[in-house]
Amino acid sequence: MLPVVVVHGGAGHIPKERAERSTSGVCSAARAGYAILRGGGSSMDAVVEAVALMEDNPAFNAGCGSVLNIKGEVEMDAIVMEGKTLASGAVSAVRNIANPVRLARLVMDKTSHACLTAEGANLFARQMGIPEVPMESLITDYSRMRWKKNLEPNANPVECQMGKTGTVGAVAVDAEGNIACATSTGGMLNKMEGRVGDTPCIGSGGYADNEVGAVSTTGHGEAIMKVTLARLILFHMEQGKSAEEASDLGLAYMKSRVNSLGGVVTVDPRGCWAARFSSRQMSWAAAQRDTLHHGLRSGEHFTQSIDDPH
Amino acid sequence: MLPVVVVHGGAGHIPKERAERSTSGVCSAARAGYAILRGGGSSMDAVVEAVALMEDNPAFNAGCGSVLNIKGEVEMDAIVMEGKTLASGAVSAVRNIANPVRLARLVMDKTSHACLTAEGANLFARQMGIPEVPMESLITDYSRMRWKKNLEPNANPVECQMGKTGTVGAVAVDAEGNIACATSTGGMLNKMEGRVGDTPCIGSGGYADNEVGAVSTTGHGEAIMKVTLARLILFHMEQGKSAEEASDLGLAYMKSRVNSLGGVVTVDPRGCWAARFSSRQMSWAAAQRDTLHHGLRSGEHFTQSIDDPH
Repeated sequence: MLPVVVVHGGAGHIPKERAERSTSGVCSAARAGYAILRGGGSSMDAVVEAVALMEDNPAFNAGCGSVLNIKGEVEMDAIVMEGKTLASGAVSAVRNIANPVRLARLVMDKTSHACLTAEGANLFARQMGIPEVPMESLITDYSRMRWKKNLEPNANPVECQMGKTGTVGAVAVDAEGNIACATSTGGMLNKMEGRVGDTPCIGSGGYADNEVGAVSTTGHGEAIMKVTLARLILFHMEQGKSAEEASDLGLAYMKSRVNSLGGVVTVDPRGCWAARFSSRQMSWAAAQRDTLHHGLRSGEHFTQSIDDPH
Repeated sequence: MLPVVVVHGGAGHIPKERAERSTSGVCSAARAGYAILRGGGSSMDAVVEAVALMEDNPAFNAGCGSVLNIKGEVEMDAIVMEGKTLASGAVSAVRNIANPVRLARLVMDKTSHACLTAEGANLFARQMGIPEVPMESLITDYSRMRWKKNLEPNANPVECQMGKTGTVGAVAVDAEGNIACATSTGGMLNKMEGRVGDTPCIGSGGYADNEVGAVSTTGHGEAIMKVTLARLILFHMEQGKSAEEASDLGLAYMKSRVNSLGGVVTVDPRGCWAARFSSRQMSWAAAQRDTLHHGLRSGEHFTQSIDDPH
């Protein structure tokens, strides 16, 4: 069953005109991650490349295409975690970085810390030689339009947020059985300056443990944090539930306890995987045994050969 | 068994000359928290007051007395969580604030977010009318001496950190059965600018759930995050373990899996409590049924009437 990579492009209600771009984006990301795994690469390399591709894709709420905070600026969060050592790296409220997920990985690889925030994260990026990009290069007309719309008095950013563009994430198991996850986001529409959501928070935005599995989450960050969704799902797997059952249990609990919807991608150490969501939609794709799987709406599950033309 | 409050003043190896101040500090904090509970106050009020007192006390690594980052500056993290709604509030890498725990509570009470970081947290503090204090007022001669010592080439800040001064935290259950936790810290000695540890990370630095209990943690933040220690202990309690058994299981797992020591204070909904640590020492105190309990070394458990002179 190994290797495998599963990616998501955010849970919610994705407008028709954006569905195709979202689907092709997650499929490309899964292909890229799988190419690394098939070449003998690590699960960490696979999830970082898959997520970085989606950060570069303006269809998603991460990197270029991030939603804007209340001041009309981009502040981004990202995390990576490797299941062998339980090491993780994260950045929160970082600015002017094209690929926060790569910076999160450098935090894990090059520092003794697990998270750097705000200006400290940017300072570290400069030390690592990561070029800063103009904020304008991360902002799309679409994100600016939605920011303006949500400045209106009766706007409901949480409602509006869900799924128009989504947080991105990936989980993978490589041929050696090493498990990794990565998640990246522009956060919540019209959020306060300095708001940190679930994404860079270990156990909420993601978690990976070689002995249990890995999860990357998407949805309303503040609700995901209330239930530490990634860690919750992995606890269910430790109790003997399958990746799919555990994902559904975690999402059902988030709905019943804090009345919130979301989605996850999940793998176990044998390569069994799940892409589950309680929201109306979540764009997702998985690659395993040279087959590409993908879907967007509840119950959808398309497959094709990984080598078929896109 | 209700109400009850349990506080800690950090896990580690506390030098003799600092032990007395640490013990009297946690006892005062437990008394203050208990006075609120005895007067019919909420567990949230109790944990915030207990932690704020320890932030004001230069014997602890939180508020005044915080350790310094690599640049010789104070950046602080804090979290609060209430078990009824699973709502939480946190600040990370905040500067020039006397009581980060009170600011964390305002994040919970006055925003739709769960965490504000760095300059965004300070901006929010100004909006709330919280006065900024000079950084010098948070720095002690002791913290400056240790910062300088750890700039030396062969210094080991993690080793040196453990227990000389500690992260502070509290858990409580009030007469109505509502559970809360709070944790506050200056973080890790000579940390990088913008480093965020376990404290403001929900499930790592603390977690509270009326249906299960609450935990506040202390130790090497990066290790605590690897095992999401607070949430791990509460999962064991959900599986039927007592507060004490679950705390010991969580700490034992952190030792075996990531080779790290720490300490916790834990309560369950009935008011059963535990103060456990795998480090050499942890200053702790608990107040319940008009009795003050406290200890510092392994196996120590002193009791006296809560109304006895200090």
